[in-house]
Amino acid sequence: MKKIACLALSLAATLMGYSQNADSVLLKNVSDEIMLHGTCYENLRVLTKTIGHRLSGSPEADKAVEWGRKAMTAAGAENVWLQPVDVPVWRRGAESLKLQLDGKEFVTVSMLSLGNTDGTGGKMLEREVICVPDMDAFAALPAEKVKDKIIFFNYSFRQDIINTFEGYGDAVKYRWMAVNKAADRGAAAVIIRSVSTGADDAPHTGTSHYTDTTRHIPAVAIGNTSATKLAAACSNHTVKAQLISDCGMNGTKRSYNVIGEIKGTEEPNEIIVVGGHLDSWDVGEGAQDDGAGCVQSIEVLRSIKALGIRPKHTIRAVLFMNEENGTKGGNAYADSSKKANEQPIFAMESDAGGFTPRGVGLEMPLEPKQKIRRWAPLFMPYGVYDFMQEESGTDIGPMRKLNVPLAGLLPDSQRYFDLHHSRNDVFEAVSHRELKLGAWTMAAMVLLVDKYF
Amino acid sequence: MKKIACLALSLAATLMGYSQNADSVLLKNVSDEIMLHGTCYENLRVLTKTIGHRLSGSPEADKAVEWGRKAMTAAGAENVWLQPVDVPVWRRGAESLKLQLDGKEFVTVSMLSLGNTDGTGGKMLEREVICVPDMDAFAALPAEKVKDKIIFFNYSFRQDIINTFEGYGDAVKYRWMAVNKAADRGAAAVIIRSVSTGADDAPHTGTSHYTDTTRHIPAVAIGNTSATKLAAACSNHTVKAQLISDCGMNGTKRSYNVIGEIKGTEEPNEIIVVGGHLDSWDVGEGAQDDGAGCVQSIEVLRSIKALGIRPKHTIRAVLFMNEENGTKGGNAYADSSKKANEQPIFAMESDAGGFTPRGVGLEMPLEPKQKIRRWAPLFMPYGVYDFMQEESGTDIGPMRKLNVPLAGLLPDSQRYFDLHHSRNDVFEAVSHRELKLGAWTMAAMVLLVDKYF
Repeated sequence: MKKIACLALSLAATLMGYSQNADSVLLKNVSDEIMLHGTCYENLRVLTKTIGHRLSGSPEADKAVEWGRKAMTAAGAENVWLQPVDVPVWRRGAESLKLQLDGKEFVTVSMLSLGNTDGTGGKMLEREVICVPDMDAFAALPAEKVKDKIIFFNYSFRQDIINTFEGYGDAVKYRWMAVNKAADRGAAAVIIRSVSTGADDAPHTGTSHYTDTTRHIPAVAIGNTSATKLAAACSNHTVKAQLISDCGMNGTKRSYNVIGEIKGTEEPNEIIVVGGHLDSWDVGEGAQDDGAGCVQSIEVLRSIKALGIRPKHTIRAVLFMNEENGTKGGNAYADSSKKANEQPIFAMESDAGGFTPRGVGLEMPLEPKQKIRRWAPLFMPYGVYDFMQEESGTDIGPMRKLNVPLAGLLPDSQRYFDLHHSRNDVFEAVSHRELKLGAWTMAAMVLLVDKYF
Repeated sequence: MKKIACLALSLAATLMGYSQNADSVLLKNVSDEIMLHGTCYENLRVLTKTIGHRLSGSPEADKAVEWGRKAMTAAGAENVWLQPVDVPVWRRGAESLKLQLDGKEFVTVSMLSLGNTDGTGGKMLEREVICVPDMDAFAALPAEKVKDKIIFFNYSFRQDIINTFEGYGDAVKYRWMAVNKAADRGAAAVIIRSVSTGADDAPHTGTSHYTDTTRHIPAVAIGNTSATKLAAACSNHTVKAQLISDCGMNGTKRSYNVIGEIKGTEEPNEIIVVGGHLDSWDVGEGAQDDGAGCVQSIEVLRSIKALGIRPKHTIRAVLFMNEENGTKGGNAYADSSKKANEQPIFAMESDAGGFTPRGVGLEMPLEPKQKIRRWAPLFMPYGVYDFMQEESGTDIGPMRKLNVPLAGLLPDSQRYFDLHHSRNDVFEAVSHRELKLGAWTMAAMVLLVDKYF
């Protein structure tokens, strides 16, 4: 009996060895296909250089939808369609900020209004600036230091936190909530230090949020260099600001998720989703955030088709609309998937930049998580080693209610928040090899899920 | 007895746990110091933007020596000195390359002569170009296709190899040896496709090498885009090239390694070395190669001093001169160390770029290697996971004969050979956080070696 068990074990080990070897050959073929013939970098060039940034509801977003449809078709997707999404429309308008940094002259400072906020209606708002390092210091301010003042939240992105996504989670509440705290106490406007790791003066935008009861006061971000100067000025003398902005919500508009797929040969109704988001903020070119995720998702389809692989399950790439200021695309996709009685079995998003991949975040029950972690040796030769985090992605988040195992590409995070939501997020900040390695990581995950899920 | 053994084991485990915990606190303090107060990025800005590139023997190299001395002193090094090194002097001179890409018109193509080669003496050399994909194809060429022709070695950097340093090892022989092969068969000159992963047309220089018997024919590199065009042209019609160059060796010159140290409290004659190289090629700014390694090595000293840590062994930072085209500084350091009867116990080099660190290469016997590998859990929270490679560095290589355990910082390799030895290796290509994390990795290694070696 022992001998038979031993034989069985040895056979199992051999078969597992064979299987691992077959998988590693498959993944090497995919890697060669993407590294040598991948079109994702050229796709990203076209998206960023011929269209540029593409905020939901903008003419550029319309062009990006058309670009996506064509790129999916060129990649060899068998079905390509547009899924309607009604998106909120926010427009920036003309804006400027002048500060009395020396206590006398007003000097123009580079700034960006925060997304989804209202501006000054194009009129000049001139008020004293009160500087606070954080929320606690703001709460401790006496009423007269808040009422009708411009509150400057000078909270710095914590450079001591190694994973910048953790630092982002810490700092982003100032972009998201400070405006409410200030408005509720009668402030006239808010300036925040940008949620940025940048060693520069680039302002970074991003969504802010009025609660139902918040007065809609303006909220803007300034770059790190200006923030340091403003804080120094405030500690030396009274500083006034002159803010002009004309931003605001402007209804909703019909837009689309762009979807392409390769039909599964055995379980076509069981769907593996890869995606990124097609919209971007209205500055820079939305290259790392998230043109990268879009072209990587398309590359997954292209490489599978180019290699003649016939997946058992349907592999679907989704370019989500409106991640940045509404998540309407993510919601529309999950709702539609539920309505159609589809069975999504796995979803993976790339929305953390097109930098060198280091891992895959796994937001799912223990059983599929452990299954995936056993694949780690297959990824190690590609420098992808981290399967211990729980991140997935904003656009696939609504699929949580469908009990889908969710995953997120985890690229190197060191440069991302230098660029994110700023004018510096351009094509030139993307490395062709890093982008392709991320696409490979997604393709590899998809093919292993197709085989073993 | 078993109980006592268990107790002893448990005690050992507790002590090890305590020790690991103390180490992890120490390394976090170092990380905070470097990430929040590190001066390496600003040091790199000054080196690259006020001096720029600095080939051995150039006036800029002299200025860099003086910069290094000051930067070491500012970092708090207790002893700072210049170690004499006689370096070869190579000068580029005016140069140009024109190609008949359409078979008729000569068009100017971006090019760089290879380092240490001789040029055309400033005269125009006009010859037919013969294109070969690799050494084997060259060997198979009939004599009349080589004699007095310009041989174009169109060998591509293999983008399918994930670790680009392996790809470099494969491709660099064309830069190093092709000129000999061609000269020995009577060719007039050599053009190579740059040893570059770049998706662009930047030519990359770097050392080439005449054997003692080689005729000194010119050798130049062109960028990837031009190489692809030239190969296409050669397959369509006869192509002539017009090459003018005026480069050549110009004797030797006295230069220096820059050395700074913190004296050990218990074993001052046992020395832990960290280093990078101060010279660079004569294009770009030598930012990633290897300004990064220099400022990181200085940062090791600075952070240790700033934290008031008193190392048992002497910690020494060395900015080596002449890595690029002679390794005279590395040899001078090892020779001097031997002469002075110093006992170097560990040496670590950073000369693979200032990108996010992923590991530490270990070129040493099994025993110290295994000791270091047991530290891996301390590095994991910083994304430094790879202790399996055997790389160290060119400048510390001569210490091999002193039986010193050698180590090399292993940064992410994806972008390095886009920039290496080209005009694109500038300060802007360096991320302040990536640079600092690399410095932390070196400081962490140094402090653990100081404690446990």
